[in-house]
Amino acid sequence: MERKRRRTVSEKDEFDLIAALRHVLPREPSWVRIGRGADDTAVLDLGGRDWLVWTCDTLVEGVHFRRPWLSARQLGRRAASVNLSDVAAMGARPLAALASLHLPSTLQDSVYRQLMHGLGEQLGAFGASVVGGNLSRGSVLSIDVSLLGRAHGKRVGRRHGARPGDRLLVTGFPGEAAAGLHGLRRRDPAAPRSLRLRRRWIAPTPRVEAGEFLLRGGITAMIDISDGLLADLEHLCRASGVGVELQCEHLPLSATLQRYARRVGRDPQAWLLGGGEDYELLCTAPPHRIPLLQKRLHDALQLPLTDIGEILPASRGRWLRSGGRRRRLAATGHRHFGGRNRR
Amino acid sequence: MERKRRRTVSEKDEFDLIAALRHVLPREPSWVRIGRGADDTAVLDLGGRDWLVWTCDTLVEGVHFRRPWLSARQLGRRAASVNLSDVAAMGARPLAALASLHLPSTLQDSVYRQLMHGLGEQLGAFGASVVGGNLSRGSVLSIDVSLLGRAHGKRVGRRHGARPGDRLLVTGFPGEAAAGLHGLRRRDPAAPRSLRLRRRWIAPTPRVEAGEFLLRGGITAMIDISDGLLADLEHLCRASGVGVELQCEHLPLSATLQRYARRVGRDPQAWLLGGGEDYELLCTAPPHRIPLLQKRLHDALQLPLTDIGEILPASRGRWLRSGGRRRRLAATGHRHFGGRNRR
Repeated sequence: MERKRRRTVSEKDEFDLIAALRHVLPREPSWVRIGRGADDTAVLDLGGRDWLVWTCDTLVEGVHFRRPWLSARQLGRRAASVNLSDVAAMGARPLAALASLHLPSTLQDSVYRQLMHGLGEQLGAFGASVVGGNLSRGSVLSIDVSLLGRAHGKRVGRRHGARPGDRLLVTGFPGEAAAGLHGLRRRDPAAPRSLRLRRRWIAPTPRVEAGEFLLRGGITAMIDISDGLLADLEHLCRASGVGVELQCEHLPLSATLQRYARRVGRDPQAWLLGGGEDYELLCTAPPHRIPLLQKRLHDALQLPLTDIGEILPASRGRWLRSGGRRRRLAATGHRHFGGRNRR
Repeated sequence: MERKRRRTVSEKDEFDLIAALRHVLPREPSWVRIGRGADDTAVLDLGGRDWLVWTCDTLVEGVHFRRPWLSARQLGRRAASVNLSDVAAMGARPLAALASLHLPSTLQDSVYRQLMHGLGEQLGAFGASVVGGNLSRGSVLSIDVSLLGRAHGKRVGRRHGARPGDRLLVTGFPGEAAAGLHGLRRRDPAAPRSLRLRRRWIAPTPRVEAGEFLLRGGITAMIDISDGLLADLEHLCRASGVGVELQCEHLPLSATLQRYARRVGRDPQAWLLGGGEDYELLCTAPPHRIPLLQKRLHDALQLPLTDIGEILPASRGRWLRSGGRRRRLAATGHRHFGGRNRR
């Protein structure tokens, strides 16, 4: 008799691992407005005027970063930013954080203090405080942050509200962080010229104010770009039950990104579409809302908001149009959990 | 010129590491009623009728557990319990949790699912739900849980309210978990006879209902025993600014613990006073409150609440009385962060 082979987590997709939990975890009570795996954060209605949003994210040495790439203070700031970005994607305001650190016993005391300094500093810049945490020994350095935020008036930017006819919008210049990471990995001899790109990976700006503006300005769906534009677009389309046509000519390819890609012989568009960790916001809105949204983001934050495509009915599929031709978007959401170290 | 030697985190006490944060982190806002390092959980006043309590705790393979010691489901339950115990020590009610897991890529999918099953099951038994989380690769298995609870009517059991003349009380039979861990480490040949003790380490009962009863019943200070009775007593005495006299004859040494200690040639009282991870509650109350507290805990939970000593003014110090003699309690709170693997 053949014995069933036991599968490891590395053979599974992260989303499948999360989806499997519905078989082993009890249903969430009704005051959990958004629960496991459904959006950028959980959303709780605990009876006050506002809802709470709640997320956690982690940076593990050797998986998400290497120590030569950034200082301890930058690492702390980055651990704050990846969590702040999830709160931003809900259009909510950050409140308070717990930090759970795994510290190798050889870690210098000053590294620990600088890390916490960076964490508190970046949270503080967005109105949030470190209110507690936990220290544990660990074989590698890791920082788990749990962040609470407030959704004013019980309104949040969700993934599931995009409608056919809406336009697809993105903040900033996605792809720059992935190019910066490429520079960090290569220890690029032309390093000074990719400084801006590397800084985009090291110190991404969580789009907290932008998320609030966008939610108030009438967007219909929102998500942050942590896995890559196409991957997170797929999450948004699936949650909303829609298709999309991306327009290549409209993608916000920065001159810096193009120059760097040319020098290292890479395709800048691949970084823009596939590279993660930009922590820009991807959202949808009816066409008539766009001019005001763009003006607000420009005036208040000097942040570009680019119209990159159109939301279609689900039956029309997902496409990338380039010039007169178009090609079907591949399902990019499927990634093996133990696969390549993307970060 | 002599260069200042750089210190590692392993040369420092965990409490010193936390205390150092006041130099690098901004002050917490006034709605943070209890903040960093001050009690078993943080306490937030977000404007509703109740306060929120919020804690996180972590189990790291090789630091806090070894996989042969317990099943994946038991590990999940234990990760819930260590967090539930912190909420219990505030007299609060658990609400919702996020789980951040570091998974080695070779981990079997079924282990992950059993772990989450155990986590959800134990949280559910105390009225709380897993509402989200994060999966990351890691070199060893670890489970970070962040748990929110509700403090009804803005009342919490704090460490700092003990007053001279109060009695010192403890639930259950502390020391049994430490003896159980001793059995697990030794793979004791007489294992079946220490089964109860091992189960006390593997599956501690968080004293959630007891914490609520005790708070309503008029205790003046409360803490859970995670570091060991003496260590946590010291936290309570320091926070309250009091001294104490423990009475050896009154310590609740269980017959099982005494038998096991005799067989392996160890001092059961050392386990009772020094062993951690019992997750029993240590509290103080005026003498006239005690009979009712004991009756309630016995009737509702069949849980003994033992009077083990008296709270003194700080000037009178901290003592352990045994027969006619007494000896000064050593400061046990100082532990090097990278020191012996206690767990």
